[in-house]
Amino acid sequence: MAPTPFAVVAGVGPGTGAAVARRFSKAYPIALLARSPESYEPLVQEINNAGGKAIGISADVSNEESIKSAFAQIKKEYQGAHCAAAIFNASGRFFRKPLLDMSVDEFGSSWEVSAKGALIFSQAALPLLVQTASSGEAKFPPTLIYTGATASVKANAQVAAFASGKWALRALSMSVAREFAPQGVHVAHAIIDGPIDIAGRDWLKDMAAEAKIAPSDIAETYWNLHTQSVRCFTNEVDIRAMLEKW
Amino acid sequence: MAPTPFAVVAGVGPGTGAAVARRFSKAYPIALLARSPESYEPLVQEINNAGGKAIGISADVSNEESIKSAFAQIKKEYQGAHCAAAIFNASGRFFRKPLLDMSVDEFGSSWEVSAKGALIFSQAALPLLVQTASSGEAKFPPTLIYTGATASVKANAQVAAFASGKWALRALSMSVAREFAPQGVHVAHAIIDGPIDIAGRDWLKDMAAEAKIAPSDIAETYWNLHTQSVRCFTNEVDIRAMLEKW
Amino acid sequence: MAPTPFAVVAGVGPGTGAAVARRFSKAYPIALLARSPESYEPLVQEINNAGGKAIGISADVSNEESIKSAFAQIKKEYQGAHCAAAIFNASGRFFRKPLLDMSVDEFGSSWEVSAKGALIFSQAALPLLVQTASSGEAKFPPTLIYTGATASVKANAQVAAFASGKWALRALSMSVAREFAPQGVHVAHAIIDGPIDIAGRDWLKDMAAEAKIAPSDIAETYWNLHTQSVRCFTNEVDIRAMLEKW
Amino acid sequence: MAPTPFAVVAGVGPGTGAAVARRFSKAYPIALLARSPESYEPLVQEINNAGGKAIGISADVSNEESIKSAFAQIKKEYQGAHCAAAIFNASGRFFRKPLLDMSVDEFGSSWEVSAKGALIFSQAALPLLVQTASSGEAKFPPTLIYTGATASVKANAQVAAFASGKWALRALSMSVAREFAPQGVHVAHAIIDGPIDIAGRDWLKDMAAEAKIAPSDIAETYWNLHTQSVRCFTNEVDIRAMLEKW
Repeated sequence: MAPTPFAVVAGVGPGTGAAVARRFSKAYPIALLARSPESYEPLVQEINNAGGKAIGISADVSNEESIKSAFAQIKKEYQGAHCAAAIFNASGRFFRKPLLDMSVDEFGSSWEVSAKGALIFSQAALPLLVQTASSGEAKFPPTLIYTGATASVKANAQVAAFASGKWALRALSMSVAREFAPQGVHVAHAIIDGPIDIAGRDWLKDMAAEAKIAPSDIAETYWNLHTQSVRCFTNEVDIRAMLEKW
Repeated sequence: MAPTPFAVVAGVGPGTGAAVARRFSKAYPIALLARSPESYEPLVQEINNAGGKAIGISADVSNEESIKSAFAQIKKEYQGAHCAAAIFNASGRFFRKPLLDMSVDEFGSSWEVSAKGALIFSQAALPLLVQTASSGEAKFPPTLIYTGATASVKANAQVAAFASGKWALRALSMSVAREFAPQGVHVAHAIIDGPIDIAGRDWLKDMAAEAKIAPSDIAETYWNLHTQSVRCFTNEVDIRAMLEKW
Repeated sequence: MAPTPFAVVAGVGPGTGAAVARRFSKAYPIALLARSPESYEPLVQEINNAGGKAIGISADVSNEESIKSAFAQIKKEYQGAHCAAAIFNASGRFFRKPLLDMSVDEFGSSWEVSAKGALIFSQAALPLLVQTASSGEAKFPPTLIYTGATASVKANAQVAAFASGKWALRALSMSVAREFAPQGVHVAHAIIDGPIDIAGRDWLKDMAAEAKIAPSDIAETYWNLHTQSVRCFTNEVDIRAMLEKW
Repeated sequence: MAPTPFAVVAGVGPGTGAAVARRFSKAYPIALLARSPESYEPLVQEINNAGGKAIGISADVSNEESIKSAFAQIKKEYQGAHCAAAIFNASGRFFRKPLLDMSVDEFGSSWEVSAKGALIFSQAALPLLVQTASSGEAKFPPTLIYTGATASVKANAQVAAFASGKWALRALSMSVAREFAPQGVHVAHAIIDGPIDIAGRDWLKDMAAEAKIAPSDIAETYWNLHTQSVRCFTNEVDIRAMLEKW
């Protein structure tokens, strides 16, 4: 019998990524990917102290070699285990800028992470997820979740860079869902529509709690997506706090 | 302290409605609404036998008096209890017909149930759900879920009647979500995109199980929607079997 | 050779309907449908005085007999002529109201006109349009245009009635487009997204002209839709004034 | 008084681009951008022979310097003239490929042209279009049109690369439309949904003419978009042949 399957979370900052990692660590050993150790080290320690198992790996999702090497390390660490879930939570930086003031590189920076990064991560994770599905041993269908945003479905003035990266990611998600669902892999895209309550965000501190999305609740929703059966795949959810205006 | 809160399910046939009722009956006493006792009686018995509590009421969602009377009966039966969830699963009949062969009444038949019926049900349920929210006593935010279909987002040739009713329902759902979320009521719309595996549907019997959506899994997804916090409301989900072409 | 083909416009008030009638009257004899003669009489006179040809007919789009009788009158008046275009510009009344204050009839009032009315009008017009297409004599593909609104794609709080009718209309439009395009009939839906500059609307008088959509320009867009070839059908356009926020 | 304003078309192949150039050349001197002279030379000659005026410039839309240099050349050639319209018709190559067989560069190749190329072209054209708008001398609002495709709104299996580029373009288009409309620039996105009838496409030769979109009719639709007033901007159109299944 195979060892406990593991989960991979890419893009572990103080918000959604960390919360998702905590939630999935209740069931699975976890691999956390982030650009720098500062982003994952406290969390790795926290999860391991809480009786879970976590490893952290410095990796850049927009760099193919970096992600290949990270997955090689994961496979070595969790040898023989199946991959239960892969969460892509990395994102280009959000910024507003008049179109004519934006450099071509700034415009591309969002796509580099949100779309190209998602592709690279998906190409590394999908063979493992397909293998999990075909093993017939997984408790839940292996799952690939992409984190989207308001700008995945809207493209306001001055956010062309961020939005075009997020729209590209949403397209990737739909295409991947259609290609891999018949193989038993569950692919979902979450539209996080509103501010996420992340400690240290000064601009949010005067906002009512009910106007801010709780990362731990996003994580619970991701977990619930993961537990859906092959006869009930949700490919897209939206998420809002109760006081969100939309 | 208030007694255990109850849930109401309108549109209880052999498929989604029954499965949702079974699932919610694990946590709540249930009231089942259907046009005729044959639709709910075996289920009422099943739930009561299994240690749950269910009552069935004959009611027509497109008839305001009928629904008012049903809710009066529910309130009497579950006196003093809050309403935890209301599920609108009724639907106009699906049929294909060339536009020029359709009578005006046939065209309207879908709207009568899917849209007008949803309004009438919502107007009866929402005051109870608002009360639940403001009581501060509910374990989960009170929830109103509407069941949609492929035709909620597509309108193919010859399905104008069914589709226009379902599109109207989706619009109602969004408007209600926006009006009542700030009061703490969670409103969600589920796009069931594909055939549902219902016993006795001959035309489905040669189809692979993985091409058919399982009602019990839809019910689980509805339950998971219900358990979301006020800081993480999903207003729309889609649902497909793994072999669905879309 | 057949006489000059005619056009029908339903829903002729002081705004879009009148402008569309004026525009199409440059090319075609026109039949104007409105509930009461006051709505069409000045326009009929204006068009006839300007060298065009127009007739007005009192008709209620949500009443099948009324529309059948109106089309019988049109066919008699324009005997032997093909129908070049039919424009459905009628609409339920826009209003905002909390959901719990809305009567079931108020909720249905929008659907009565926007959806049921559109069906009845379409069923009367489509046989004529199909005939025009199959005659091979028309200069432009026979065209059926439906007027939509912001609320055709959004459903804000308190506008459930208006929005659900308009969403239903949009579904009808898509279904009709798919069914009748292969027969050579061009069906289009226009999302008029913003305030229309209609004389006498006091609440608009302090708004910049560039923030208000000009009815005559909408009419020009409808005309341009009409002139598209069978190898280039537009099924949906949106329309906004340059200062519109969206 | 300023000389006759000019138009720029990027992405001039044998199909849409050439047709658009021909159509706009009836009103304006034209600048044609394509990667290689073979793409534009016959057309430049054709337009000049027909009494219009056209210049061709070899340029790569995904190369900022190349486009800057092309626009410098255009401004020199059409000195003192306003820019009436800029059409972005370039596109990444369409191809189907299983996700796991796709190289990261292949995935990015569509975005390079469809999104980054569109940004670079827009940044070069918009200052000219804004100037035209503010001059108050233009007959029609200066116009920027982007050519989209089925894959701008759908993302099927195996087309993740092409689709994600096109979705990114659509997001860019919406953002640019919102930013520049208040300055009087008309931005539109056209969803060309189906095969375009281009000479030499062998795989299309047995298809009925009415199943293929005519490039000259697309061009007419683009021209009609261009002639819309500031009080009636269409930001998105779809286009299909009458026999298209959708």
